[in-house]
Amino acid sequence: MNKQPAIILVRPQLGENIGKAARAMLNFGLTDMRLVAPRDGWPNPAAGPAASGADVVLDQARVFETVEEAVADCTHVYAATVRDRDMPKPVVTPREMAAQLHRYIDEGSTPAILFGPERSGLTNDDVVLADTVLTVPVNPDFGSLNLAQAVILAAYELHTYADETPAYQPSHDDRLANKEELLGLMEHMETELDKRGYFRSEDRRNPLRRTLRNLVQNASFSRQEVHTMRGIVKSLARAPKTDD
Amino acid sequence: MNKQPAIILVRPQLGENIGKAARAMLNFGLTDMRLVAPRDGWPNPAAGPAASGADVVLDQARVFETVEEAVADCTHVYAATVRDRDMPKPVVTPREMAAQLHRYIDEGSTPAILFGPERSGLTNDDVVLADTVLTVPVNPDFGSLNLAQAVILAAYELHTYADETPAYQPSHDDRLANKEELLGLMEHMETELDKRGYFRSEDRRNPLRRTLRNLVQNASFSRQEVHTMRGIVKSLARAPKTDD
Repeated sequence: MNKQPAIILVRPQLGENIGKAARAMLNFGLTDMRLVAPRDGWPNPAAGPAASGADVVLDQARVFETVEEAVADCTHVYAATVRDRDMPKPVVTPREMAAQLHRYIDEGSTPAILFGPERSGLTNDDVVLADTVLTVPVNPDFGSLNLAQAVILAAYELHTYADETPAYQPSHDDRLANKEELLGLMEHMETELDKRGYFRSEDRRNPLRRTLRNLVQNASFSRQEVHTMRGIVKSLARAPKTDD
Repeated sequence: MNKQPAIILVRPQLGENIGKAARAMLNFGLTDMRLVAPRDGWPNPAAGPAASGADVVLDQARVFETVEEAVADCTHVYAATVRDRDMPKPVVTPREMAAQLHRYIDEGSTPAILFGPERSGLTNDDVVLADTVLTVPVNPDFGSLNLAQAVILAAYELHTYADETPAYQPSHDDRLANKEELLGLMEHMETELDKRGYFRSEDRRNPLRRTLRNLVQNASFSRQEVHTMRGIVKSLARAPKTDD
């Protein structure tokens, strides 16, 4: 996406958390960081090291005195907080927010997400400036998210919404072995085992052979791995070197 | 879910990151933390403060010398890393992993997720012990995730998979105003405006009235907010208090 939401840290306390939030943003391609009245001023020497290379985000960060000024150019504002039942706002999950943000951005709007200070979170006066409350469904007995962790969950969902990475990529770029290759391995094993009396009696031969063939079948061998297995069988079937 | 995956931090360097990972785990209900050869030994005094109350996770954390020992009782192991093309393993996103983990746990299996040390990540010898590679799709130009951030994304997806929080909850628990209530407000406004000559001419009356009605219609007022609006109209229509 061309445009992106502003990530607004409201009265953040620790420079380290600002740095970690910047890193989290850039991990998912976000760069519009805004700081409202950071407690220890700005720039903050603790932010850079914590950003681990996301300096571009910190260097471009804009500082505002108030939330009102920080959101002035924004159209849709989300407040990351636990729902306050007295505040008549719709509440969305991070995943739903991601879908809405993509729609707003496609429309040409400028959305923003507000994150509150570490200890106390956003005040009601902050939240009232937002259109929508963002609440991450968490363990109800231990729901307090670290600031940079809250930022990364929002950034992750936003990125994942439009990401086309396949959910599952198979283990072999080349290809799995075909049945002819598998059968070659099975027969090779059976021949060498037979020479050594592995099947013992004709009664046992068929059940044992089926066990062995199922084992090979289920192993999802690639073509290369069938070659490796045949080398192993060949090597085991050889007499040990006398000089060992 | 009753059982849960083990979160295995392999050779973690900073106690602070172990504490933050513990907090991230407990935020989403995970408690089985395992540490493989933590650089600064265990317990680590920096972990507790960073866990911000997730002491139960740190107190129960088990320490192992090797990855082999840490995964001994596990059946399916995921390695959080960027895919190495030479390593024939399936690669999944966090969301796909969450679906697989729930299936394995329902089957009675014990899965685990390996996270590597902060600077270097998992080695090939670590990854070879895993069944599946977990790769978070990130900004390809800035893909290095903080350890606790990688843990929270996995824990979040696992929790979200089974979470039933509605994606969208409307702003009003009571209900939106019905059409009779909205029409009452519209007519109240029109009457008071009419008395003051707002509509100017009969030509303009209908277009202006439609503009006003659309504005009220689109505002998604609750029943309570219609009451508030009527109080505002009534108050504005009154003569100012003379003693102000």
